[in-house]
Amino acid sequence: MRRWVDWFVSDRLVMAIIVLNATALVLHEMASRGSLARSAWFWIDYVCVIFFLVEALVKIRRDGWKIYWASSWTKFDFSVVLVSMPALLGPFLDLGKFAIVLILRLGRLFRLFRVLRFIPNLDHLVLGIRRALRASIGVFLGLLLINLILAVMATLLFRDLDPEHFGNPVASGYSIFQVFTVEGWYEIAERLEERAEESGMTDTRLLVAGTRAFFVAAVLIGGILGLSLANAVFVDEMMMDNTESLERRIDSLTDEIKRLRDDLKT
Amino acid sequence: MRRWVDWFVSDRLVMAIIVLNATALVLHEMASRGSLARSAWFWIDYVCVIFFLVEALVKIRRDGWKIYWASSWTKFDFSVVLVSMPALLGPFLDLGKFAIVLILRLGRLFRLFRVLRFIPNLDHLVLGIRRALRASIGVFLGLLLINLILAVMATLLFRDLDPEHFGNPVASGYSIFQVFTVEGWYEIAERLEERAEESGMTDTRLLVAGTRAFFVAAVLIGGILGLSLANAVFVDEMMMDNTESLERRIDSLTDEIKRLRDDLKT
Amino acid sequence: MRRWVDWFVSDRLVMAIIVLNATALVLHEMASRGSLARSAWFWIDYVCVIFFLVEALVKIRRDGWKIYWASSWTKFDFSVVLVSMPALLGPFLDLGKFAIVLILRLGRLFRLFRVLRFIPNLDHLVLGIRRALRASIGVFLGLLLINLILAVMATLLFRDLDPEHFGNPVASGYSIFQVFTVEGWYEIAERLEERAEESGMTDTRLLVAGTRAFFVAAVLIGGILGLSLANAVFVDEMMMDNTESLERRIDSLTDEIKRLRDDLKT
Amino acid sequence: MRRWVDWFVSDRLVMAIIVLNATALVLHEMASRGSLARSAWFWIDYVCVIFFLVEALVKIRRDGWKIYWASSWTKFDFSVVLVSMPALLGPFLDLGKFAIVLILRLGRLFRLFRVLRFIPNLDHLVLGIRRALRASIGVFLGLLLINLILAVMATLLFRDLDPEHFGNPVASGYSIFQVFTVEGWYEIAERLEERAEESGMTDTRLLVAGTRAFFVAAVLIGGILGLSLANAVFVDEMMMDNTESLERRIDSLTDEIKRLRDDLKT
Repeated sequence: MRRWVDWFVSDRLVMAIIVLNATALVLHEMASRGSLARSAWFWIDYVCVIFFLVEALVKIRRDGWKIYWASSWTKFDFSVVLVSMPALLGPFLDLGKFAIVLILRLGRLFRLFRVLRFIPNLDHLVLGIRRALRASIGVFLGLLLINLILAVMATLLFRDLDPEHFGNPVASGYSIFQVFTVEGWYEIAERLEERAEESGMTDTRLLVAGTRAFFVAAVLIGGILGLSLANAVFVDEMMMDNTESLERRIDSLTDEIKRLRDDLKT
Repeated sequence: MRRWVDWFVSDRLVMAIIVLNATALVLHEMASRGSLARSAWFWIDYVCVIFFLVEALVKIRRDGWKIYWASSWTKFDFSVVLVSMPALLGPFLDLGKFAIVLILRLGRLFRLFRVLRFIPNLDHLVLGIRRALRASIGVFLGLLLINLILAVMATLLFRDLDPEHFGNPVASGYSIFQVFTVEGWYEIAERLEERAEESGMTDTRLLVAGTRAFFVAAVLIGGILGLSLANAVFVDEMMMDNTESLERRIDSLTDEIKRLRDDLKT
Repeated sequence: MRRWVDWFVSDRLVMAIIVLNATALVLHEMASRGSLARSAWFWIDYVCVIFFLVEALVKIRRDGWKIYWASSWTKFDFSVVLVSMPALLGPFLDLGKFAIVLILRLGRLFRLFRVLRFIPNLDHLVLGIRRALRASIGVFLGLLLINLILAVMATLLFRDLDPEHFGNPVASGYSIFQVFTVEGWYEIAERLEERAEESGMTDTRLLVAGTRAFFVAAVLIGGILGLSLANAVFVDEMMMDNTESLERRIDSLTDEIKRLRDDLKT
Repeated sequence: MRRWVDWFVSDRLVMAIIVLNATALVLHEMASRGSLARSAWFWIDYVCVIFFLVEALVKIRRDGWKIYWASSWTKFDFSVVLVSMPALLGPFLDLGKFAIVLILRLGRLFRLFRVLRFIPNLDHLVLGIRRALRASIGVFLGLLLINLILAVMATLLFRDLDPEHFGNPVASGYSIFQVFTVEGWYEIAERLEERAEESGMTDTRLLVAGTRAFFVAAVLIGGILGLSLANAVFVDEMMMDNTESLERRIDSLTDEIKRLRDDLKT
């Protein structure tokens, strides 16, 4: 019995079911609606959900709640099971409302995140990303605030010319984000120039020059400087390991010499 | 009285007012013109300006001008207050002229920069950026000059084919900057090729080859090489800390050994 | 005889033939169909294939199979020769079927890879790339899995609005990859917004906001964060050399001091 | 006399003339044809050329040819003067031929490169760039060769579908370079897919999948991997200084200890 339980919650079986589940989720969407394959993949997915539920219960039974809840991975697994529960009711409900169906489906999709476990050295990577993100939070927050400032500025300046892209600060913020990704930045500027010419303004020339200066500045700050800074902070944080390893070695060397001096004194 | 003053200029209250002010500025632009919400947010913003004015006066009164002016942050706050002053007159003026309204509004926007204070470790970040910018000034100045050279060259070569984008060195400089951001570079080249074909030139083939070579070179120099260099200089500057920390440790180690030698001699 | 053999398989001659072969392959495609030049280049290419075949045989004869097969370069050369074999039959077959012709031609193209040998320090570079790729496999696998998750999510959300780009998970995966390259990401979002408006949905506003949030998140995760992380891992791996060289020096220094202590004790 | 000569060839005066010359060149192109300003700027430029000629002669006279020719900067200045010579004949020739005018004009433009002298620490920067380029020559050469291979492959595969972009290896190489810059890569793929559908091929689906795989691979190799590698090599090369400085310190430390051991032995 015990052996059967261990096999049931073993990493190898769980991994296989995760892959099967991911495959079922993808192929379910690939199959045309109403086809037999689609309903087959749906029921395979359904069985996988039940498996994950049973797996969690078995594990909790075997290890006790305390040990089960200690690892952040099993916490994640448990929340996946919880979110998947409503999906089990799916076939028995009259799902008339679109919104509920969508939420149920996205809940099922949540299980796909379990495939992330396949990444080798995931813990190490997550640690590195978390540290790099914490180090670069200042850069990203700064870019967010500069985005906000530029968005309000753009709203004031370009609202009448291009209400679709700069009609309110939220729309402007989206447009400025686009400029920060450097993607299509000059097309936004071009559209403003065209509109200015159409509207028959008197000093178009000044407006064009100002608009171009505004977008060149936004590209330089957000796209070139911001990205480079974030990049540099990331690399810096990644290399911290190496430097710390060197520092430890030098420190131990210094200790060695101090011990040598002490030896000599006595 | 003193306690009340301290509370009034405390970071917590000022921060709260900055956030309130930023919210008012954004929501004022979100509200439709002539709506009640818009005028409500306008007056909240108005009160915030008065608050900042009083805050500056109270701080100067409490600490004296010398201490107040010592920090570059309070300098910035004071200039924000100064720039905001004219906005206070706004409601009492007949703002017929568009230009004045815009300047007043942009002046109000200037206050948004105070939100940058929320960035954690801002002083550290500003220091890092300033150092990285100073180190990469050569790269950026070089790119600016190469942009200038390519712009004059492009003006001479493509002025007749595409006067809109290469009609004069300033327009050319803008187009070359666009090529440096790699964004839509091949579309500019394509347009030139099309125009060349339309104009019925004799040796279109050579022109197409030359144009393509010109833009490939510009992309390589500005977009690939320039960006990579700036990036490398940034990382180098960021890592300087680590290297300096290592150097200090090694130096102190060397001192330790010298002291050891001295010990032995005596 | 021996000298003639050595000359025949010498690097200089082989390199010259590789260049000749690459030139023939390129110019064969440049020449218009049915022209004399085209058939001339074809036969030059044909002779090159025979040369490579003879070269391999001569080398195997001279060095023995064991030595010949030891180097991964000669392994590559041999597989090139093998793949080229069918092309020798080309002129004698009635090549009615398009597919066979294409495969034969692509087989010939495979020989072009031999020009990669001209890269100075190729072994060093390959080693660096292999190490960097191994180190960044986690980042790339993570991006691939996130791509998969976002693709299934996008399929569920946008399938009905834009079946061409999000009709099934594979098409969605391609679109999400496009968003990860930052190239034209906002155009995909724009198209979805337009379709939503056309379809006369009730709460377009919410849908637009959700769509934009989805794509901004995808750009940030894939295009900004993913690329920066991969970049940082690459740099980290490249710099490993330097750190290791420093570590070796510090270690030898520590040994030196230990020996000094031992000297003192005796 | 001597003092006057020194002043004449002093850096300050030469720099001023370089700026005046650059301004004249730019404003000459800004002015409308046939205007007075245009001819004024032309003659100012003309005088600048004469100044540079006289400056070179005066310097050679003062320092002798050997010293003059020793610096690579004066070599560059001299070649600028040489290239500018024909421009002096400009006003006296009947410039009927377009080609000669253009060459003369581009020759004048060559002088603009002298503004690069204004970059602070130029020698240091040039050294760094040269070293970084030498280190990354392998990566760039590799990308060039991969570009060549992909170009010939694309010619074979897509020549009939899109002769404009893949008609011959040179056009293909340009298109592949465009894909390597990530700019508009998916538009090229999209055009091929559309053409395939129009041409009424039988297995469009396979072709679309193959095309997409081809372009995704090209983007990954050229745009993501290639750029990251070049970047990593650049940073590595820039950081070499720091590592070398550390290595020198550690080496001198080791020497110190060796001397200490020698002291103890005697």
